[in-house]
This record gives sequence, structure tokens and C-alpha cells, in this order.
Amino acid sequence: MTAAPRFAFDIHATDGAARTGTIRMRRGDIRTPAFMPVGTAATVKGMKPADVRATGADVLLGNTYHLMLRPTAERVARLGGLHHFMGWDRPILTDSGGYQVMSLSELTKQSEDGVAFKSHIDGSRHMITPERSMEIQRLLGSDIVMVFDECTPHPATYDRSAASMERSMRWAVRSRNGFDSGGEHAERSALFGIQQGSMDKGLRRTSADQLIDIGFDGYAVGGLAVGEGQEQMFAVLDFAPGQLPADRPRYLMGVGKPDDIVGAVERGIDMFDCVLPTRSGRTGQAFTRDGPINIRNATFAEDRGPLDPECACSVCATWERAYIHHLVRSDEILGAMLMTEHNLAFYQSLMADLRGAIAAGTLTGYADAFRARYVRVKEPAGGA
Amino acid sequence: MTAAPRFAFDIHATDGAARTGTIRMRRGDIRTPAFMPVGTAATVKGMKPADVRATGADVLLGNTYHLMLRPTAERVARLGGLHHFMGWDRPILTDSGGYQVMSLSELTKQSEDGVAFKSHIDGSRHMITPERSMEIQRLLGSDIVMVFDECTPHPATYDRSAASMERSMRWAVRSRNGFDSGGEHAERSALFGIQQGSMDKGLRRTSADQLIDIGFDGYAVGGLAVGEGQEQMFAVLDFAPGQLPADRPRYLMGVGKPDDIVGAVERGIDMFDCVLPTRSGRTGQAFTRDGPINIRNATFAEDRGPLDPECACSVCATWERAYIHHLVRSDEILGAMLMTEHNLAFYQSLMADLRGAIAAGTLTGYADAFRARYVRVKEPAGGA
Repeated sequence: MTAAPRFAFDIHATDGAARTGTIRMRRGDIRTPAFMPVGTAATVKGMKPADVRATGADVLLGNTYHLMLRPTAERVARLGGLHHFMGWDRPILTDSGGYQVMSLSELTKQSEDGVAFKSHIDGSRHMITPERSMEIQRLLGSDIVMVFDECTPHPATYDRSAASMERSMRWAVRSRNGFDSGGEHAERSALFGIQQGSMDKGLRRTSADQLIDIGFDGYAVGGLAVGEGQEQMFAVLDFAPGQLPADRPRYLMGVGKPDDIVGAVERGIDMFDCVLPTRSGRTGQAFTRDGPINIRNATFAEDRGPLDPECACSVCATWERAYIHHLVRSDEILGAMLMTEHNLAFYQSLMADLRGAIAAGTLTGYADAFRARYVRVKEPAGGA
Repeated sequence: MTAAPRFAFDIHATDGAARTGTIRMRRGDIRTPAFMPVGTAATVKGMKPADVRATGADVLLGNTYHLMLRPTAERVARLGGLHHFMGWDRPILTDSGGYQVMSLSELTKQSEDGVAFKSHIDGSRHMITPERSMEIQRLLGSDIVMVFDECTPHPATYDRSAASMERSMRWAVRSRNGFDSGGEHAERSALFGIQQGSMDKGLRRTSADQLIDIGFDGYAVGGLAVGEGQEQMFAVLDFAPGQLPADRPRYLMGVGKPDDIVGAVERGIDMFDCVLPTRSGRTGQAFTRDGPINIRNATFAEDRGPLDPECACSVCATWERAYIHHLVRSDEILGAMLMTEHNLAFYQSLMADLRGAIAAGTLTGYADAFRARYVRVKEPAGGA
């Protein structure tokens, strides 16, 4: 038996642009295409870690912005790191804080150095720079660290997109240097770059080339799922993944709805994260193979079936729609718990199906059958 | 193998006035002294049934008042009964609705017939009579049905206490008749009477005698934990249990704090229910063998110990106080989940200790050691 590598990506099979493989890391394997449940504040909301694992999750996402404010990265480090703190011993990917500082905090002030802001929790003043983002992710003990970048707002002019992408590339260099100076943590974890360039193919090409020059363990497609809609997102994914190294994992940040994921996998994406299954579960939306349903709807008050008749999860094996309708209508905690668990199991089941279809060379047939049946709810791509 | 009896109570050992035994019913055994977690709206808040069971619970309590309003007893019956609905296949005791209709609903109007009221949920008008209470508990599929009674407010004059007790005894006759006319359900479930009489020994004697004349499977001591304080509650428990049949289970409704339970077991009580471990868990109070702690307190922000260092529950085996402090401060659902699970495990561990001490004939020593260590928070007896 050999020690697990710092970071390795083995591609087992391809089908068109799609790939299935395994990321191997010290804390465990990640089967790709992978969906990462979001554990914002050191918890996947309403779920114990063992139950998250039981849905099939290999890796969680933690949010640098939330954790730096509460309980703070320094406190998490003193308490033994994020894995020990929350009781999850498998890989954790942390974002850089760049996206959420712009969307959640107040009085942000951006400069070449970084972003100054006031906490949305207590109004305290903070600053994130590429170097500080690397330090926070190191203090948390992240396995996959994301570079600190600027998520270009949508829509953006060419000049605005170019300037924003170029700043992100300068920050990518500073992130790489900050990460590499992290001592033992840098020897045990991985760093991903993030491609920007909005919807422009040339800017995305430039961004990809600069990232490749710097060199990263994996590459994210950033700046999508920002309200552009599925059609435009797929138009970018028709070229963006191909601009990134074929032998490295490609991560589409903040995506998405089940049919977004299917289309992105067909276009060569290996990793996803999204709050949709957890957040929408807490508000009563359950995913099914026929599309989402709102369990609060009166039509489910005496429905004796499971949330999704084809689901193998423990929620669907145990409780009927009528019961979960009652719980959600009554604002019971257990309603949020069961909806979240089912939705995460649905997503992981979808990922397992996609991996199997790629391995069998039947992805197109699987994806077409999925789309023929899945009735999409009209909302922006990414959904949340 | 013989079929489980409708209702049997085997006393295995006594120690002073205390007893330990087993209630045997069709849906399973109940080890006494027993603590019943409260599953108000067809859920123990924040807990899956399997996790409630894993804490050591043999029986749950369901609330007639809440369930009759939402989702309604008729709907629960159409959906296969409360056990199937919520996924708990062991015994369920249901209260009669009498206590909660007076404490939770609006515009109550009490008469010899029963109590008319407006729902606290939607303002709709309802009426509970002894006959209707029996019907609701039958529709729910309750294993242990409680008679519909009037919980005498505290303090009450002798005349008020006597009149209230006498009405409860007339309602006990009507409840018995209503239950007995329930067909198959009456052949499969048990009916408990409820002693009233406020703090007066003579009225409690009269009430007990009348209940014994009617005949019940078990007997509750009602009208305590209504703000009288532990001293006065224990003064009543010095005589009330002895007025009830020695060979039948005795149930102290709505009690209580851990030290209330210890003292009541010493005085001959076999069954308890209380929202305290669940409700106070959701607001940040964790029970420990040294008394309750408020996990929100800043002193726990970097406390690396478990909630209770001597607790064997899965929460204490996995997470530190610092993490649960963070979750509760952040209003995370998982905080409520873990606090509830620990508190229920603490209560069930206390009951197991009491059963063991009675069986070993060491209850006085156990109880004295418990009290010497447990620092009580000053609140009314029953606590919630």
C-alpha cells in the first residue's frame, strides 16, 4: 500500500467531451463528475456529516467569507481545523471569499490590493487580499484551495470584462505565491485557478493561458451562473472547458440545477457545487426525476407516495409525501432535514448515473432521456 | 412465542416506594421508570425517529390538541395512523388535549359538555368533549389513551379544586365509555385515568377512589408541574402515588427537570413526559451531570470538551462544545439537532441509571449522589 498522493487525477473513461475519473487526495478519493454539498458555516444545513456522506458525497465545500467572520479562521485553527471542528474527515474545498464578499457584505471597497468590507453579521471591518484568502484557507485546513479572484458581474462590456479578468490573473499569481509560502499545508493540499473573461471566447483563452503558465492542480470556470441563463452558459461551456488542460479537473463554480449539471458534464466539467438542493429543500422544493415539486402544495396533503418514486434514499424509503407536506407546512425542523437529505441524495444519484453513463459510453442517450423527462422550473441558471 | 398482551405491567424490583418494571404492549415493551419524549406535531422536533429510539426511548408522547388541528385526526387515520405517518412503530401515548386547549387556544369556553375553542393556528372553531377526545385518540391509533380531564389551575381554593376534580371524574366515566365503544382499537390499546384534587390529600384520595371504581390500565397524577414549585410537588407526591393501585403504572404528567424526576421516582412514579430536554435544547440549554449549561455562553467558544464529559451519546462522542456553541450562535439547524439529541440521551441515561439503582436496591445512594452534584437552575418545577 502506497501513501495517498497530494493530488492526482485519473481519468477512467471519456464520452465525447465528458470524462469520468477519480481525484486522489490524502483525505480520500473524489469520484468525478462530482457534486459538492455546500457547508457554509461549517455545517451542511440540517444534516449530520455521516448522513451527508451516506448520500454519496465525497467532498464538501466550505465558505471562506462566512467562516472568517464566524467563528473566524484563527479560532477554527486553534480548534484543530475545519475537518475536526465539524466532524468531516474527507476532502473539503474552500472558496476564496471573493464571490460572497461582493454579494453578501456591505460597503465593499475594491482596489488592486483586495476588497475591504463590513461584516453582514456585526458590521465589523475586514479586508480580503489574495494573500489573506490563502492564509484563511490554510488556517481552515482546506484540501482544495481556490485562488482569490473577482467574479465579473453580468452583463459586462468587453473592456470591463477584460480589466476584471486581468486583475483576477494578477491576483492568481499572488494567490499562487501566497499558497506556496504556506509550508506544510502547501505540501498536503491543492490549489485551483479560476478562469474569467465573462462570455468572451478570446478573453477566456487569454485567462486560461495565463493560468496554465502559473500552473494549478485544477481549473475552475468562473463567472458563470450569474444570471446569464442556461443557453448563454452552455454557449460559454462549448469552448471554455476545452481551453483548460485536459488532464486536470475542471470545476464549474456555483452550478446548478440538475439539467445545468447534465449539460455541463456533456461539455467536459468534472466538479460542481451549489446551494440549490439544500436551500430549496428548506423552502419546500423537492427534486424528482420529473422535475422539482413544491411539497407545500395542497395536492400533496394526502399523497401516499415517496418524494420521488424512483429514489433509493432513506427518506423516500421511510416517509410519504403527505407526512413531509405536514412537516414543512408546520415549519418543523424535521421537514427541512428530510427535504435536504432527499435533495442531496437526488443530486448524488444523478452524479452516479452520469459517471456510469460516461463509463458505458452512453452519455448522450442518458442525457437526452433525462431532459425529455425533467420539467425545468423557470429561474436563472444556477438557481441560487 | 406468545402474542404480546394488550397491556401488562410486570414489576421486577422495588426500593422504598420506587419500582422498576416493564409495561408490555403489542407494539413493544416500555421499561419503567420511563421518560417519554414529546412528539407534539407528529415529530420529536429536530430528530428522526430512529435517532430518538437510539437514545433509548421506548415510547413517545403525541399531542391530541396539535394533531386534531393539523393535520387533523381524520387525515392521520386516512394516512394509516400516527405510527405509520411519522415512522415510529413502538408505543405512542397521546394526551387528551385537555391541558393544551386551555393553555394554547383562544376564546375557550368550558361547560359540563366539554371545551369549545378557537384554533391558535387559523382561528377555526372546535370542540373537545370526553367522547371527541377518545375518538381523536382512536383515529390517531394511540397505544395509551389518556382520559379527557380538567387540569385544575394553581393556586385554587378548596371549593374550586373539589368542583374541578368532580367534573374530571364525571369526564373520566364518559372517557371510559367512549374508549370502550371504540371497537378494535379498544381491544388493542390501554386507557389511563388521571387523578386530580390540586394539593389536597382528601380530594386526591376521593379522586383516586373514583378512578379505581371506574377501572383503568394505569393512573396519572395530574394537576402538578403547574407552577407550584418542587417542594410543594414533592409534598403531594409523598401521598398521591400511594393512593393509586400499586400494581398499575403511575404517570406524572409534564414532569420535568432531572431532579424532579429523581425525586418523583423515589416517591413511586413510573412514567414521565416533558418538553424540557427538547425545547430547552433548541434554545441552547444542555443537560450535564453537574446541571444545565447554556452553550451560547462565550465561555464555551473554544471549549474542547463534549457537552457532558460523562455522556456516552453519539453527539458527545463526536463534537466539542466549541462547535455546538458556534452552531447555536449561528442559528444553525444542526445546533438544534445535536442539542436535542444529547438532551434526550441524557434523560434516557438518567432513567436507565434509576432503573439500575432500584434493581440493585441502591436508589437512595444514587439519588443523594445525583442531587449533591446536580446544580439546579431556578425555574418553576416542570420547567416548560
